[in-house]
Amino acid sequence: MTLLHIIYLVAITAEAMSGAIMGMRRGMDLFGICLLGTVTALGGGTVRDILLGHYPVGWIAHPEYLTFTIGAAIVTGFVARHLHHLRLVFLLVDGLGLVAFTVIGCDVARSMDAHPSIVVLAGVITGVFGGLMRDVLCNQVPMVLQRELYATVALFTGALYVGLLTVGVHSDIASLAALAAGFTFRVLAMTFHWRLPDFNGKDIRGLD
Amino acid sequence: MTLLHIIYLVAITAEAMSGAIMGMRRGMDLFGICLLGTVTALGGGTVRDILLGHYPVGWIAHPEYLTFTIGAAIVTGFVARHLHHLRLVFLLVDGLGLVAFTVIGCDVARSMDAHPSIVVLAGVITGVFGGLMRDVLCNQVPMVLQRELYATVALFTGALYVGLLTVGVHSDIASLAALAAGFTFRVLAMTFHWRLPDFNGKDIRGLD
Amino acid sequence: MTLLHIIYLVAITAEAMSGAIMGMRRGMDLFGICLLGTVTALGGGTVRDILLGHYPVGWIAHPEYLTFTIGAAIVTGFVARHLHHLRLVFLLVDGLGLVAFTVIGCDVARSMDAHPSIVVLAGVITGVFGGLMRDVLCNQVPMVLQRELYATVALFTGALYVGLLTVGVHSDIASLAALAAGFTFRVLAMTFHWRLPDFNGKDIRGLD
Repeated sequence: MTLLHIIYLVAITAEAMSGAIMGMRRGMDLFGICLLGTVTALGGGTVRDILLGHYPVGWIAHPEYLTFTIGAAIVTGFVARHLHHLRLVFLLVDGLGLVAFTVIGCDVARSMDAHPSIVVLAGVITGVFGGLMRDVLCNQVPMVLQRELYATVALFTGALYVGLLTVGVHSDIASLAALAAGFTFRVLAMTFHWRLPDFNGKDIRGLD
Repeated sequence: MTLLHIIYLVAITAEAMSGAIMGMRRGMDLFGICLLGTVTALGGGTVRDILLGHYPVGWIAHPEYLTFTIGAAIVTGFVARHLHHLRLVFLLVDGLGLVAFTVIGCDVARSMDAHPSIVVLAGVITGVFGGLMRDVLCNQVPMVLQRELYATVALFTGALYVGLLTVGVHSDIASLAALAAGFTFRVLAMTFHWRLPDFNGKDIRGLD
Repeated sequence: MTLLHIIYLVAITAEAMSGAIMGMRRGMDLFGICLLGTVTALGGGTVRDILLGHYPVGWIAHPEYLTFTIGAAIVTGFVARHLHHLRLVFLLVDGLGLVAFTVIGCDVARSMDAHPSIVVLAGVITGVFGGLMRDVLCNQVPMVLQRELYATVALFTGALYVGLLTVGVHSDIASLAALAAGFTFRVLAMTFHWRLPDFNGKDIRGLD
């Protein structure tokens, strides 16, 4: 079991817990909480696998991942009231998960000999589409489209990883470097509230 | 044509009608009503087939299913004002459809030699994702994540079916027993307003 | 490079710009604008490919399409305030895109020997699902389910195209005729505000 795999399991557990909490805040029942936690944790990899035609999909080949996400969601149902004390831990694990998901997503696309730009995009999709689908199910505009440097961190991590591989760096080194640099970027972005430009466009006239 | 197949055709017709009514209540036009009815009726099986990589997708192999759902949606456009008198019939057919979709979904996953937990999940996905996508298209939090024992009935039906098969019961008997037990469970759940716990979590502090 | 291909590239550029503007109006940041523009432009073809099991998906086989959609979205970020002067141009290019997407979608399904009804539907899905997913991500009921003759134009275009092919017309002629007739239909529908019946059903009682 590699370091990346351990980070992955910790990250899907944390993502499932944060998804479950969002479900509880919307009055969802136990099934809703389990489904929302699972979609948050595994949705990005699922979308990536379907887009690439990479079968079997991750959690269908490894149903034990569902044990982590459903177990985490159920536990969250009982301890959610106390988790906000751990908010900082969750933000850090979420950042670690984002970069780990990205590197894993790149690896899946690489294994299918995809074009380098698709390899990077497969990483970004793995990193951000779980949260995006969670927000759609919660009936809100996905946060990842609006706020903070989140997708940008995935893009930076994936591009750095693919770049290092292209210049001949060994994949273990490239993956560690991308994880470290991407995670640092994410922590800096959170600390200093870095954001992408949003063009301040709410008053723009539409075309329809 | 098996009993299960007949139940399936009746169920997709009823699901398409209930989806069409929800579309009409939101001011959708004829195309919207037909699409919403079809998504409600066939969406669960479509998601299951895509997740499993089970091609061709059901309604693409059997375009005649679309005749049922689109026909039902169009008819609904003209008779919708009177359908609420049949509300009880629709609830019962919907319950029958839920358990039939579940058993059919399990069978598809079994035919692909999926892990037993994935077989049960394939049944649940078939049963609930049509309504879930209908609600997303209607811009509301999916009802199946919030209310009533609905997904739970699918989970019970699928688990019972797979359990009976595992202990060696003939598949015809197992499927009939799962349909009967699951439908009874659904009717009892509706009659007595059984619900899953929802942890009463609307005031919980989030992690983001 | 065929005429259809040139229309396709112009159309995905215009669709990406209109999607980007909708994202800006909702306060999305640069990533959100690029993703929303890309989903609007390429989402319909992506859904079609996944439903048909037609791999690799269009933009994965041709990553250069992403250059068009992402480039168009970024440019839009800077010029959006002035684009409403070009509203009529966008409506016309959007109409041309709708019929071009439809014919291209039909061709993909034909290449897989799908049933004629599925061929037409593949065209409709290609034409309308990009805008549908754009609206879901913007947290609103998809416009295509509610207003104007839009999906109907795709249906007419696809049915005409398949009909002409069935009676033996050469595919180049059939495709030009379908494009011309479909585009004319769309322009007439916009000019005279043609709509499908909506059954005026907002006060209908639901079944749940």
